[in-house]
Amino acid sequence: MEEQVDLVGKAFVDHYYHLFDNDRPALSSLYQPTSMLTFEGQKIQGVDDIAAKLNQLPFDQCRHEISTIDSQPCSFTGGIVVFVSGSLQLPGEEHHLRFSQMFHLIPMLQGSFFVQNDIFRLNYG
Amino acid sequence: MEEQVDLVGKAFVDHYYHLFDNDRPALSSLYQPTSMLTFEGQKIQGVDDIAAKLNQLPFDQCRHEISTIDSQPCSFTGGIVVFVSGSLQLPGEEHHLRFSQMFHLIPMLQGSFFVQNDIFRLNYG
Repeated sequence: MEEQVDLVGKAFVDHYYHLFDNDRPALSSLYQPTSMLTFEGQKIQGVDDIAAKLNQLPFDQCRHEISTIDSQPCSFTGGIVVFVSGSLQLPGEEHHLRFSQMFHLIPMLQGSFFVQNDIFRLNYG
Repeated sequence: MEEQVDLVGKAFVDHYYHLFDNDRPALSSLYQPTSMLTFEGQKIQGVDDIAAKLNQLPFDQCRHEISTIDSQPCSFTGGIVVFVSGSLQLPGEEHHLRFSQMFHLIPMLQGSFFVQNDIFRLNYG
């Protein structure tokens, strides 16, 4: 059971950042009208506004490298919480930006999940 | 509504780290048998094992300083997800350890919450 949660968390994380780095507009498929994103302290609600925010970030290309993925089941929703740490490389920047991000995934039909809660923070040393 | 969530998240965070730094055994009051903690990748389940882990950490005294608190409601549980970044100072250590931590709080009677999900990671630069 715990292994299953880890596999789902890792598969979600791989998929999420692959889309972010290669096809950012497609990230909207992972959110719903109830979804919430807090991006560096800015609160955004609903798939449309979240997609707009992600697509309007002030860089076109980026590359995420994942350092750690911690997943836990949430028995109250049948969902999963996923906590990610990693680094983000922007074009033309030599150094990486460290970040942490958490997702609360809620199950949908046919074994898929959507992102209900998403909180992103850069880590400043 | 969002303000209420922020107030609850901040009150929880203040309470949690105050207990951690001043009366660590009392942290057990915030967990339940269903609770899960992932501490630097180690998974621990249930209030008893979580309390044992927190009380057996290899330092007696510490001091948390909180940098950011991001809270969101979870409409599927009536709960709150709280994402914290900050630093941890250990006795005799000059430099601070940066950390990130997330909590999924589930409501109980009388307006209180318990920690269902807790994930802690140190941030390595």
